[in-house]
Amino acid sequence: MNGQMMQMPLLTSSLLVYAERHHADQQIVSRRVEGDIHRYTYADLAVRARKLANAVAALGVAEGERVATLAWNGYRHMELYYAVSGAGRVLNTINPRLHADQVTFIADHAENQVLFFDMTFLPLVESIASRVKTVRHFVALIDKDQMPASTSIPNLLCYEDLIAGQTDQFSWPVLNEQAAATLCYTSGTTGNPKGVLYSHRSTLLHTFAAALPDSLNCSASDAILPVVPMFHVNAWGLPYAACMTGAKLVFPGAGLDGKSLYELFEAEGVTMAAGVPTVWQGLLNHVQANKLTFSTMRRTVIGGSACPPAMVRTFEEDYNVHVIHAWGMTELSPLGTVCAFKGKHLAQTPGERQAVQAKQGRAVFGVDMKIVSPDGAELPCDGVQTGDLLVRGHWVVSRYFKEEGEGHLQDGWFPTGDVAKIDADGYMQITDRSKDVIKSGGEWIGSIDLENIAMAHPAVAMAACIAAFHPKWDERPLLVVMKKPGMDVSREELIAFYDGKIAKWWTPDDVVFVDSIPLGATGKMLKHRLREAYKGYKLKGS
Amino acid sequence: MNGQMMQMPLLTSSLLVYAERHHADQQIVSRRVEGDIHRYTYADLAVRARKLANAVAALGVAEGERVATLAWNGYRHMELYYAVSGAGRVLNTINPRLHADQVTFIADHAENQVLFFDMTFLPLVESIASRVKTVRHFVALIDKDQMPASTSIPNLLCYEDLIAGQTDQFSWPVLNEQAAATLCYTSGTTGNPKGVLYSHRSTLLHTFAAALPDSLNCSASDAILPVVPMFHVNAWGLPYAACMTGAKLVFPGAGLDGKSLYELFEAEGVTMAAGVPTVWQGLLNHVQANKLTFSTMRRTVIGGSACPPAMVRTFEEDYNVHVIHAWGMTELSPLGTVCAFKGKHLAQTPGERQAVQAKQGRAVFGVDMKIVSPDGAELPCDGVQTGDLLVRGHWVVSRYFKEEGEGHLQDGWFPTGDVAKIDADGYMQITDRSKDVIKSGGEWIGSIDLENIAMAHPAVAMAACIAAFHPKWDERPLLVVMKKPGMDVSREELIAFYDGKIAKWWTPDDVVFVDSIPLGATGKMLKHRLREAYKGYKLKGS
Repeated sequence: MNGQMMQMPLLTSSLLVYAERHHADQQIVSRRVEGDIHRYTYADLAVRARKLANAVAALGVAEGERVATLAWNGYRHMELYYAVSGAGRVLNTINPRLHADQVTFIADHAENQVLFFDMTFLPLVESIASRVKTVRHFVALIDKDQMPASTSIPNLLCYEDLIAGQTDQFSWPVLNEQAAATLCYTSGTTGNPKGVLYSHRSTLLHTFAAALPDSLNCSASDAILPVVPMFHVNAWGLPYAACMTGAKLVFPGAGLDGKSLYELFEAEGVTMAAGVPTVWQGLLNHVQANKLTFSTMRRTVIGGSACPPAMVRTFEEDYNVHVIHAWGMTELSPLGTVCAFKGKHLAQTPGERQAVQAKQGRAVFGVDMKIVSPDGAELPCDGVQTGDLLVRGHWVVSRYFKEEGEGHLQDGWFPTGDVAKIDADGYMQITDRSKDVIKSGGEWIGSIDLENIAMAHPAVAMAACIAAFHPKWDERPLLVVMKKPGMDVSREELIAFYDGKIAKWWTPDDVVFVDSIPLGATGKMLKHRLREAYKGYKLKGS
Repeated sequence: MNGQMMQMPLLTSSLLVYAERHHADQQIVSRRVEGDIHRYTYADLAVRARKLANAVAALGVAEGERVATLAWNGYRHMELYYAVSGAGRVLNTINPRLHADQVTFIADHAENQVLFFDMTFLPLVESIASRVKTVRHFVALIDKDQMPASTSIPNLLCYEDLIAGQTDQFSWPVLNEQAAATLCYTSGTTGNPKGVLYSHRSTLLHTFAAALPDSLNCSASDAILPVVPMFHVNAWGLPYAACMTGAKLVFPGAGLDGKSLYELFEAEGVTMAAGVPTVWQGLLNHVQANKLTFSTMRRTVIGGSACPPAMVRTFEEDYNVHVIHAWGMTELSPLGTVCAFKGKHLAQTPGERQAVQAKQGRAVFGVDMKIVSPDGAELPCDGVQTGDLLVRGHWVVSRYFKEEGEGHLQDGWFPTGDVAKIDADGYMQITDRSKDVIKSGGEWIGSIDLENIAMAHPAVAMAACIAAFHPKWDERPLLVVMKKPGMDVSREELIAFYDGKIAKWWTPDDVVFVDSIPLGATGKMLKHRLREAYKGYKLKGS
């Protein structure tokens, strides 16, 4: 026997309709590629998204076909989010930090019909325009009067022209909620990127979960600045959660340096921001160097890679900004866990609470997770044993775009490729990527713990710990360190710094100092590059 | 083209599975009918719910069949919530404050197979046991040793016996998410109650929306005390939201007087409570009379009927408890609007903010609303014009149980029977039930405004404003007042109290003082009874 409630599909367009009706005058502020600050409302967004939906149809894009973006976080990108998916087309946000070959691969694989791009990426688009096979239209996200005088791109269209010619009369179609809404490719550091095809339903359920108090905690009294890019996993769902809750949105555009971000935080009364540790390090450096404080910022969500405990401490103790550690993946839309406190933690000391905050957090409702041994047996949640992390849920990938079957799943669970432990309270902590684990004499050493300790040293700007060949133990930890400008520390001092902080045999055997550590397109350290670079490295004393 | 994310239905059982896995040791505390405080965890709840699911099957209840409760808020009722729906049966919570004839009507109409009841309601159940047509088993929610020595109920079963005999091995079935989960009847003050059949899907979507920061704002650091009864519209969804978020739950059982509630608030560190204004008045009376304060309570959600501004002020200013005004209906699962601030309100004075809080609030995402004129035309959201309030959404009834078609809908919208205005920020304020509106010389006077003003007078405990016959104006407002114990106020003083607070012609023509005002089964004033009682009343001066 079925219930007898109204039937309506879960669609991304309903978020925009809701925001227009109930939060019409709420602001969306964007730092533009043009250099200025742009300011409008949800009502304006809705009007322009409807015009854009007409424009996309006029360009000959059929339902279900893909439309690509190479763009920063900004209001035009937001319009594309809602117009393309809402009209039943599929938005493929491409990471512009990828190599031109990878961008081309993605555009071809997705069979993109139109490519919208910010002017920052004009050289990139010019370099691939003649190679991408299916793109029929290239559209520059820029005002008419700032269109390039000449370009090798054939028939380059201007976004503002495109929508100026359209009416704002458009009825969002009542799609099947299983229909694809967006497509995002993993930034696999090895091999070709793989596409994850999100549905309207998975996106809406993810949005509900993301906005919950113990997740990203979004409300109409917030001003949210997503540093996390809209070109990668939908900026952690914030463009959707903001519409669902009527939050003010502040988009940083290309200005991701500490100074630009800080100025935007203060000028727009930002209460919450979300980004990767490397971006926050830049922000903290700026704030520390200039002896600034945050006047409205209350919390920051940190994910993408493990947040060093030293960063948690600095934000919490020096700046009274609450740090919310989170973990996700492209394959998870991306939210998997968020490190929100339970009631019992509120009575703890700041130090005890920071030990909790160092973990990636609890599974949000809608995602289930477990750790398993190499033979697939579930391991206990005792906070000690580590195993391969598997997840499943409403917004977890079942198969990659254009791949056959679900062969990568294990009994219906998605293997994340992370190694983790889970404590009795359900808090998960990543100890390593499975391919980064250091296997010393048959035992595993987690590289992230070793990196976090190094990062707590005042002279260390960034640290990567990789496996180096050892004749007796097979692998031993080698610490690769980038020092802070003007600071110094020796190999011996750093090795001594581990004393008492970790099991003696986990201590890195050696340290090398480098000028820079290679970062991937989403700001993660590319440890496989370091492993290649130090393949023949001879550890001192081995 | 469909998305390629994992497919799993939205089921209430997934809430329990999540709570057991990720919040196993979180507490559920209940004041029992037995008189003591009972304390256990989500892990215990899950084990006993699985035993109960086996027990319900053993009683011969088939999938889709209905199981009834007549019970207070407590852990056994919670077990019934999850076990019955989770196992694919339908839980019909019956309001024990209804007349025995109505309870019988509901039990027959729902074709309940089993009736579970708290001992408080033994006399009620004894009075109907021989009349209800389909109930095959009666089960007392009590420990074995406190079963009644004798009763007229044939073969009365003991709940603890029932589950003690069962294994806790039970796999929650993978139901269709459209399957019915619970059934609740409207407490229509006239005519027979009508059944609203909630689905698993509508319940889960409602739970997400209810837990959001701008809704009931539920988190794992909260201790939630639902005074709103589990026997009526699922206690506003809190039994589900608590599992979704891992909140501590505190159930008051039958102890709804101010003293019992206050003691539970303090003993269990309650941070959030939810209830109707009449219950909060009792609590405030107790706290004021004994000069107490709240040490952990941060916010209270008030709904069920309009919250008088005086109550908002008292909670906010005297007790530092944030009041969240909300509005819902049985037909809405029940959540329609919640009065959470927007960013711009945070800079306002307490007085300005309280003017916002006097409204029932903004539509939560998932519900849309509008006001219409008698001819069905949509009226502007200008905060001035009033009209019939219509709603639609994922958890709004499409048709009543066993009724044919959707004849009560207007173009797909559910007419709430409320008269309301909506301001430009989307805040809705109920001005009346359409049947309570006072029609004076062709113009409408809203009775709720007049009641709120009277309630602000220090000597007034409760006030109802009804239409009385007037030879010239057809109807004029008559104020029916119950004074606070030991306080006095005259007719003339009360009428003068309206000066300057409202349009002159809205002022009540007359006041009658009564010892009590009749309340319905959910704590609402039964104004139709007052209208009958004062049918022939001759207004002074008319």
